[in-house]
Amino acid sequence: MHRLGSRPPASLDPMVAVTAHDMNCVNTVILDRMQSDIPLIPKLAGHLIAGGGKRMRPMLTLASASLLGYGGTRHHRLAAAVEFIHTATLLHDDVVDGSDLRRGKRTANIIWGNPASVLVGDFLFSRSFELMVEDGSLKVLKILSNASAVIAEGEVNQLTAIRRLDLSEERYLEIIGAKTAALFAAACRIAAVVAERPEGEEAALDSYGRNLGIAFQLVDDAIDYVSDAGTMGKDAGDDFREGKMTLPVILAYARGDAEARAFWLRAIREGENGEAMLAEAVQRMRDTRAVDDTMARARHYGQRAIDAIGPFASGAAKDAMIEAVEFAVARAY
Amino acid sequence: MHRLGSRPPASLDPMVAVTAHDMNCVNTVILDRMQSDIPLIPKLAGHLIAGGGKRMRPMLTLASASLLGYGGTRHHRLAAAVEFIHTATLLHDDVVDGSDLRRGKRTANIIWGNPASVLVGDFLFSRSFELMVEDGSLKVLKILSNASAVIAEGEVNQLTAIRRLDLSEERYLEIIGAKTAALFAAACRIAAVVAERPEGEEAALDSYGRNLGIAFQLVDDAIDYVSDAGTMGKDAGDDFREGKMTLPVILAYARGDAEARAFWLRAIREGENGEAMLAEAVQRMRDTRAVDDTMARARHYGQRAIDAIGPFASGAAKDAMIEAVEFAVARAY
Repeated sequence: MHRLGSRPPASLDPMVAVTAHDMNCVNTVILDRMQSDIPLIPKLAGHLIAGGGKRMRPMLTLASASLLGYGGTRHHRLAAAVEFIHTATLLHDDVVDGSDLRRGKRTANIIWGNPASVLVGDFLFSRSFELMVEDGSLKVLKILSNASAVIAEGEVNQLTAIRRLDLSEERYLEIIGAKTAALFAAACRIAAVVAERPEGEEAALDSYGRNLGIAFQLVDDAIDYVSDAGTMGKDAGDDFREGKMTLPVILAYARGDAEARAFWLRAIREGENGEAMLAEAVQRMRDTRAVDDTMARARHYGQRAIDAIGPFASGAAKDAMIEAVEFAVARAY
Repeated sequence: MHRLGSRPPASLDPMVAVTAHDMNCVNTVILDRMQSDIPLIPKLAGHLIAGGGKRMRPMLTLASASLLGYGGTRHHRLAAAVEFIHTATLLHDDVVDGSDLRRGKRTANIIWGNPASVLVGDFLFSRSFELMVEDGSLKVLKILSNASAVIAEGEVNQLTAIRRLDLSEERYLEIIGAKTAALFAAACRIAAVVAERPEGEEAALDSYGRNLGIAFQLVDDAIDYVSDAGTMGKDAGDDFREGKMTLPVILAYARGDAEARAFWLRAIREGENGEAMLAEAVQRMRDTRAVDDTMARARHYGQRAIDAIGPFASGAAKDAMIEAVEFAVARAY
């Protein structure tokens, strides 16, 4: 049994180490399959794919396969497919959000324009299905095509929730469960499919990924109110400026008095989002412990992720997967 | 043997009649599978799906299946998948092109904004793969995932060719072969897969669809220089205003003298695209027979489409598929 928080300081290094060899193979597939006779495609895709992402999702596929002692190579192609789905989503997200900075770099839509980002996203998405078809497992195809549809639904759900201060924590959890956690869950689950493990192990890995994904997104949402672009490669206050409803805002609004609610209406619904407003938002979150408690919620899901893989045999892969959760929930501090 | 042009006036009615019963089933699948708990999704998707499109691509799947005497129902789900891919492409296209009118109606991106169009497109694309996975044929999945990647490549290719007057007819044919004809070809080919026909028949139907698709796009490109919004549900001159390189422009430019080329440079590369410029462009195309000869090229591909299905048994389906080609190439007049 592992209690979250009992082993800091945490890092992603053990998971990187456990998956290093396989990740080389995945990177080869990724580089090979993002090629095209149309030069703009590898150029634009490469900007994001080579752009210093952690390859978290394919790493989860690889770590899960390692946890199960899988000795084959099918997961390389599928991990690349997972990364392509993620990359396509990021390209479209940046268009949808009008973002200009991701991981500390200018976004593809800023450099090459929205049309190219939309179309190269479509290309990568199609390529991911081609990779799955080459693998040939209808079960994997079902898991990942369903995850893709759920992600898109979650994104639309979030879009329709923009600037809606009456968003409930429940609906917010539905949104991040779809737009973020579904792919984490699928990335882990498919490892059990290729390793031909029983349904119970599939479900356990799905649960690990899903809860980790929720924890991950909650921490991301908290970070938006505590970090700056220098440390996180993301503009602090991006969510605030976009009027995005995240748990810190939901909690600060729910816990505030009439005067506080008036502030949040001005900031989120009416879009008064200058530096002074952001500073005040951060202060109000501190006063209501909204960010701290978003982190507490993240730890709750993190603990559930850890417990989900409790039944699996101990070893380097399991330790790494546990520490990845520790890392995910410790990032903001 | 059927010689193109020997049976005017042509209409799509015979193909509609041949596929009417099956199309009811396809429409049921489409309406069922565009649903979502997120109300914006069916609303936005329905705007385009119920918006008076001819359902040309799924109709081709159904007509091809009928040509082969296929008696099952698998093609209903797959035809719906084809229509979803097409709809997703249209939603993204309108964002990419900044279009405001399609089939005589305001486009989804104008009504609901680009972000929603991008995301609902992603949703429909994912749903199309879910439908294919439910059918369970890896061969169909391969054909359609490849077609999707090719379409996206073609769109990017076209994007990078914008305002490039040096575009060759060859590269233009590559572009429309990818962005339009690939899905026509796949829509026809998958009928042979579900009917379990030999490779040769698959290839013949692929060829019919591909050549029809090229003819179709050539005529569309010609129409942009002869029609008005009232008759075609498309703004005449859209391509001209966007600086899109299409065969009429390629021919008019190639056939013009130095003075003519200077005109096209101003119009296409520098974007001088007011009404007077459009009128002059149309006149110059008339003088160089650029539109007429684009139509002649279309008839060439149309004849190839008809000859590709020559070996199949005569009957209502074959007659309807031939007349669909006649209709495609006769549309402008």
